Amino acid sequence: MGMEDFVVTTAFDVRYVETDAMGIVHHSAYIVWFEEGRSAWFRERLRDPRGYALIEADGYAMALTDVSARYVSPARFGDRVEVHTWVSSVRSRGLTVDYEISHADSGAMLCKGSTRHLCLNRDGAVVRIPDRWIARLSL
Amino acid sequence: MGMEDFVVTTAFDVRYVETDAMGIVHHSAYIVWFEEGRSAWFRERLRDPRGYALIEADGYAMALTDVSARYVSPARFGDRVEVHTWVSSVRSRGLTVDYEISHADSGAMLCKGSTRHLCLNRDGAVVRIPDRWIARLSL
Amino acid sequence: MGMEDFVVTTAFDVRYVETDAMGIVHHSAYIVWFEEGRSAWFRERLRDPRGYALIEADGYAMALTDVSARYVSPARFGDRVEVHTWVSSVRSRGLTVDYEISHADSGAMLCKGSTRHLCLNRDGAVVRIPDRWIARLSL
Amino acid sequence: MGMEDFVVTTAFDVRYVETDAMGIVHHSAYIVWFEEGRSAWFRERLRDPRGYALIEADGYAMALTDVSARYVSPARFGDRVEVHTWVSSVRSRGLTVDYEISHADSGAMLCKGSTRHLCLNRDGAVVRIPDRWIARLSL
Repeated sequence: MGMEDFVVTTAFDVRYVETDAMGIVHHSAYIVWFEEGRSAWFRERLRDPRGYALIEADGYAMALTDVSARYVSPARFGDRVEVHTWVSSVRSRGLTVDYEISHADSGAMLCKGSTRHLCLNRDGAVVRIPDRWIARLSL
Repeated sequence: MGMEDFVVTTAFDVRYVETDAMGIVHHSAYIVWFEEGRSAWFRERLRDPRGYALIEADGYAMALTDVSARYVSPARFGDRVEVHTWVSSVRSRGLTVDYEISHADSGAMLCKGSTRHLCLNRDGAVVRIPDRWIARLSL
Repeated sequence: MGMEDFVVTTAFDVRYVETDAMGIVHHSAYIVWFEEGRSAWFRERLRDPRGYALIEADGYAMALTDVSARYVSPARFGDRVEVHTWVSSVRSRGLTVDYEISHADSGAMLCKGSTRHLCLNRDGAVVRIPDRWIARLSL
Repeated sequence: MGMEDFVVTTAFDVRYVETDAMGIVHHSAYIVWFEEGRSAWFRERLRDPRGYALIEADGYAMALTDVSARYVSPARFGDRVEVHTWVSSVRSRGLTVDYEISHADSGAMLCKGSTRHLCLNRDGAVVRIPDRWIARLSL
């Protein structure tokens, strides 16, 4: 099975700090939730609770270069949300990850987005994603 | 059973955004984790996933007036943490809530803290905690 | 002069909390910096330190519906950054705002981005931007 | 002049993201503002815009071990706030820093607090603050 077919869903409760004076979740919280979805994806994909931290411990980073988000409807404190995360494309030196965030109870769509990442080594140089990581992420 | 005997534990993974340039979780994240522990306490105590949002919907707030935290050892990305939360004292117009945050795997203590809260009505006036809420929170 | 020709620059120091375990500013901080640039734009455009808060006090919100950002080079703690903000298009019911974030000393580009906004009234309905606000924002 | 007599004031506008669903600034933002006050103190004390980053570049950290805050009155979006920061005690291996946050226009007190710090070297061991840093911070 390819990396692209592996969709991971993680759920959590809205934190009060994530709300703003409009009474709804601030748009920047969804960018953090994308990251939380991505972290869950790595944890499940690598079948290890340390997840992406294993890649960093190996000397590589998947540095984020682009983010985009479209906000569909608001979330509020007291809501539980789900983040659905999958890798939408793999390149030799990077990945694109897509996200859908929905209300856990109603299933209503809250936000869709995407992030692009480049593989860096410890010196910060852009490098090919090591074959061993491609293999582990694709199994 | 009194409010004080009810300890709620909630667990979650460190978010990458919560780390800082020292490579560890920034101290302000623990203040947010206290809130997450408190939110879990209300969800479990009220046996309702909306938790504290029910109190706000009823026109009251438990406004935070004091916070203190002691940091014992650092958490890192890749760690799973537990927040243990209990009400350490109940006053007619307020509550004190205590927290212990530990590493989920090792049980190592990471941080201890406390927050004090005053009950406000919709006009922002300090009021007695309504009897119906004292009752629901004490059952 | 149209709204589109008015570029506002605001500068501030990187906050330690905004860094992450890579030793650089976390990508979500730039989304907050876009907002800080937008807030500065409203403060200067309305020639009032309350800025956008005046629009909210009048019963309207410029709700964010889309965000995109491209990250060019990293910022670190100890850096001072500049956000350059301008309205790139005005529609009857909304605005698009563009941003460039650069290193204050070297002028090096750090991040470019854009946000789209819809005008909401107190009921959360999408409405035309009131003529009086168009006028005040265009002078 | 001792370190303790040097009070640094820095001012900035409330960020919208710092507000919460109560319509006021979330208590965790003040913890970040303490840090911003501390950063300004180091920038002014060391007469260098990099401030505390110089100490880190030299291989030392002033790790935060305790924080406490008392919230007096709320701030809102549209407010400009001032943080007044000073070192209230110096120990061989650490510092205590005190803060008062007030409304810039009215001078109304918003929050008081304190943080304690221990000097760490690159290995994370608690060490004496190097004499050269004591000297530079005391001039």
